[in-house]
Amino acid sequence: MPIVTLLTDYGLKDSYVAEVKGAILRIAPDATIIDISHDVGNYSIEEGAFHLVRSVPYFPEGTVHVGVVDPGVGGERKPIIIKSKGAFLVGPDNGLLAPAAERLGVSKVFKITNRELLPQRVSDVFDGRDVFGPTGAFLAKGVAPSELGVEIQSYVRLSTYEPNVTGNHVEARVIHIDGFGNLVTNITYDVLESIGADPGCFFAVNVHGTENRIPYVRHFSATPKNELLLLVAGGGYLEIAVNQGNAHKHLGIARGERVSLTFLK
Amino acid sequence: MPIVTLLTDYGLKDSYVAEVKGAILRIAPDATIIDISHDVGNYSIEEGAFHLVRSVPYFPEGTVHVGVVDPGVGGERKPIIIKSKGAFLVGPDNGLLAPAAERLGVSKVFKITNRELLPQRVSDVFDGRDVFGPTGAFLAKGVAPSELGVEIQSYVRLSTYEPNVTGNHVEARVIHIDGFGNLVTNITYDVLESIGADPGCFFAVNVHGTENRIPYVRHFSATPKNELLLLVAGGGYLEIAVNQGNAHKHLGIARGERVSLTFLK
Amino acid sequence: MPIVTLLTDYGLKDSYVAEVKGAILRIAPDATIIDISHDVGNYSIEEGAFHLVRSVPYFPEGTVHVGVVDPGVGGERKPIIIKSKGAFLVGPDNGLLAPAAERLGVSKVFKITNRELLPQRVSDVFDGRDVFGPTGAFLAKGVAPSELGVEIQSYVRLSTYEPNVTGNHVEARVIHIDGFGNLVTNITYDVLESIGADPGCFFAVNVHGTENRIPYVRHFSATPKNELLLLVAGGGYLEIAVNQGNAHKHLGIARGERVSLTFLK
Repeated sequence: MPIVTLLTDYGLKDSYVAEVKGAILRIAPDATIIDISHDVGNYSIEEGAFHLVRSVPYFPEGTVHVGVVDPGVGGERKPIIIKSKGAFLVGPDNGLLAPAAERLGVSKVFKITNRELLPQRVSDVFDGRDVFGPTGAFLAKGVAPSELGVEIQSYVRLSTYEPNVTGNHVEARVIHIDGFGNLVTNITYDVLESIGADPGCFFAVNVHGTENRIPYVRHFSATPKNELLLLVAGGGYLEIAVNQGNAHKHLGIARGERVSLTFLK
Repeated sequence: MPIVTLLTDYGLKDSYVAEVKGAILRIAPDATIIDISHDVGNYSIEEGAFHLVRSVPYFPEGTVHVGVVDPGVGGERKPIIIKSKGAFLVGPDNGLLAPAAERLGVSKVFKITNRELLPQRVSDVFDGRDVFGPTGAFLAKGVAPSELGVEIQSYVRLSTYEPNVTGNHVEARVIHIDGFGNLVTNITYDVLESIGADPGCFFAVNVHGTENRIPYVRHFSATPKNELLLLVAGGGYLEIAVNQGNAHKHLGIARGERVSLTFLK
Repeated sequence: MPIVTLLTDYGLKDSYVAEVKGAILRIAPDATIIDISHDVGNYSIEEGAFHLVRSVPYFPEGTVHVGVVDPGVGGERKPIIIKSKGAFLVGPDNGLLAPAAERLGVSKVFKITNRELLPQRVSDVFDGRDVFGPTGAFLAKGVAPSELGVEIQSYVRLSTYEPNVTGNHVEARVIHIDGFGNLVTNITYDVLESIGADPGCFFAVNVHGTENRIPYVRHFSATPKNELLLLVAGGGYLEIAVNQGNAHKHLGIARGERVSLTFLK
């Protein structure tokens, strides 16, 4: 039974997500549909890309990921399929799919052109239901991407925000704030290794000009309740967190803001 | 594999929706259950009806739609099944199911009376779990509605709020505000056709005594970012929106309020 | 087809729940996964336990319930499987699973020890995805719990907050506030029976020193709109509610607070 995942910024209050699922099930009635998230900030391609890049490795071989965060719907951006190692990704060509596709390994890219297979388009502004969902359903059924579109040679990449590393100093950015208030930075585990930082060490963390000395630990309970800590959580990125608390409220920092860390050897 | 959809005002914080799903799966373990929305404003029959009427055409033939927005639970209102073209609708007889059933085409209506088939009722106030969900599950399994109840001749219709059209002037109402802040009016595509308004034209839109000249366009990106626009989105109703912005915040209008539009020929 | 339910405090904004589902589907691709709730207050074991204890009786024989509200993740608490009558429960040994397991009837308890079956652990802080979800998936596939862990003799029970009953007076507590603002107390139907209170009677209800005379009824519509009422809803606990209104806002009482009721014979 094929698996189709959905990531959108449609929210769960409206019937939009359900309409996409109905359109998928009309084509692939046996599909198992899994929601990645529908609470991506409206039009926030970067946040959607973060959810996708985290999730895709955990799904079975052959999964089709449909992602729709699409501020350019109805405009010039291309509808695409990226064939990756063990998965297909379907959505607008605006960078949303790129980090996840690259994490799996990109093999081919197709522009969706075969309007005859797709349901009659009733709207210019709901490609999730009228184009991307149905395309994902056909792929889940085993239809080849070359029957749905034409191969193209490039896709829009997401300008990644690499942290700036100078010696033991890292200029980073908060790329996501999760539901617990954990601040996810763009510092990967690899960056930490490259500067020689291991769990047990401390960082001086500067937010809005105020500096905190924060331990880098392996799990939340390594620090007392309500105290700040740094840890690499399940997603592979360094997070600033508070044990059983909310680092976002504690530090008053927003998504996209800068944070600088100095490794205290 | 039968599909059962669920629409309620139960929210997703509590276990209520899960209990309904468990009750369905006990009867129809192979059912695919799809959520339409569970964030309908508490007891808002009109909002629930709007989600249903939008969604039902996108589901496969044979889908069973269970809708529970039920301020009269435990009282006199009838539990019903509406057999429509290609689908069953199950829920309280309070208007919630009527617009969706009429969009598909009503063929027969049944009052649910067969308590013996249903699980033992443990509560007078949870018919979603104890009556409507299980009834939907039996229908999904192929049990005939005549085994679950008795045919009746009428059902409660939802007083629809048709816009008032005089020449090129339309007195309308905001019937829904979606998660993007788009203001959905009760002006259908047919109304626009009847007054000769095509994409590319302009309307003078009067909200709370303030008038804006707003273009009627085919997609969001036809206007500059942060500017007001009118468009018929996926649901077939004219919406007032802001490109990549929030029309609800922009205009300060609430659901149910009036808006008047003059077509500028 | 096996059913796996999920209860977490992860929220639905992030991709965390999706990653757990992906990890389950890699092991048990045919599993039907049902969400109980992911909006449990962060780290609130008592609230999670309440959702589980309510829901488990409504699922089919053989369902596997995975619950993860886990403030001690990465610390000393044990990962466990509780084999109950007709179901397995999987999660941290912190009381979360205990009331639901006891409601069904506990037969055996296992500590999860077989790391070789489980996927490679990539994080110390995401046992939902790396331990509990996959363990639930193996149980759903029919793997015996003795292959996943070793039997142990006890588990952490949740200190239950029994109400204090003296004659016709009950000192109770609000254990949950649902999405409608209904105040769920720890007074079960059995307690009401023991003091001889039947629907139709009245209670004097004291909240924060203010007393209200409130009828105990069988359904919401037995009282006028916007008036207070007491009723045993679907969960088997006495609730303080307002017909078509919000008792939480009306009375200004928070979860965990005391309320005293005197049965007016």
